[in-house]
Amino acid sequence: MRDPMCDTVHQELIGMLQLVEAAMGRATTALLAPDPELAEQVITDDAVVDALRQEIDERVLAALATQHPVAADLRNLVATLRMCVELERMGDLARHVAETALRGGDLPVVPPGLQGIVRQMSAVAQHLVSEVRDCVGYPGGHSERLLDHDDDEMDHLRLELDTALLRANPGTRSIMDVSLVGRYYERYADHAVAVARQVDFLAGVTR
Amino acid sequence: MRDPMCDTVHQELIGMLQLVEAAMGRATTALLAPDPELAEQVITDDAVVDALRQEIDERVLAALATQHPVAADLRNLVATLRMCVELERMGDLARHVAETALRGGDLPVVPPGLQGIVRQMSAVAQHLVSEVRDCVGYPGGHSERLLDHDDDEMDHLRLELDTALLRANPGTRSIMDVSLVGRYYERYADHAVAVARQVDFLAGVTR
Repeated sequence: MRDPMCDTVHQELIGMLQLVEAAMGRATTALLAPDPELAEQVITDDAVVDALRQEIDERVLAALATQHPVAADLRNLVATLRMCVELERMGDLARHVAETALRGGDLPVVPPGLQGIVRQMSAVAQHLVSEVRDCVGYPGGHSERLLDHDDDEMDHLRLELDTALLRANPGTRSIMDVSLVGRYYERYADHAVAVARQVDFLAGVTR
Repeated sequence: MRDPMCDTVHQELIGMLQLVEAAMGRATTALLAPDPELAEQVITDDAVVDALRQEIDERVLAALATQHPVAADLRNLVATLRMCVELERMGDLARHVAETALRGGDLPVVPPGLQGIVRQMSAVAQHLVSEVRDCVGYPGGHSERLLDHDDDEMDHLRLELDTALLRANPGTRSIMDVSLVGRYYERYADHAVAVARQVDFLAGVTR
């Protein structure tokens, strides 16, 4: 990534990482306080992440069309396209946390006894993003091992949260499972719609 | 998509769609029966979807590197890369449903009163994919409106499922919310790791 276009894209990628890191931090604050106003702000600000993604996408497509990149340059551009998808989704997930905060109104959605775990999950999530930011800045380091550690920590915290929920009410397992299954089908449908959107892109339909 | 490479990629995309459609159908059967053996099979078979994604990815990258496509051809290839990501994720979600089926052992995870809604969600999901398959086969149709209808139906069913869960136990709202929040953080972390993987791809590290 040496030419000015690539420098711009690289800066925008780092910008997206900073935004999604901040978004999860603010969403968590909004969830635990609870702070509906802050939650609304996180939801509104997610549009900035989406717009950045759009901008990077267009720059990369233009570069693919005009520069005929090969080898490392081509890999760079394709990797950038893929990263944008993930980062946009991370922004969406922070927005979902903020939306959950709003569901409780002025009452906290997360019971006091579980706030500590949720706070830790948010801290691990943000630490992970800061590590990713380091690896995007200086590729080729030993990032993966560090990331794996955080990712394991996250899985462990998720299990701890579920166990705490189960302890509070033994009927919870089924409720959680059925609720998650509901989300799986919904997400599956969303992805199917996303595929169809690409068909329109493919056919050159303006959206 | 006229040259032989593109025909192959197109056939493989249709193949992925057929596989993820079947996977969700089988996962639902495994969940509702319950049928742990079928669930295991769905989980194992997800590797085929992942392998197809890898194959399409490599073909598209090779085409980008050697054919220097522009305009419609470039859009085709980029759209294909994006579709693969969504389809792989759909396969993952079908696998998650199968994994949930296994959690109950020989007892059904979904209570009898909620099986009807889950069955409908699965039917809508599969119908959606069959419509997407039609649009990938014949781009430029009025697919989006049909898809929107199914997507709305899915959101409606999800709401119905949550309402039914709430009716059964008024304390459920908080359990569902906290459990979903847990999932949001976990997914956020997964996406962060996926970004880091692209950094390795970018640096040319073999995985």
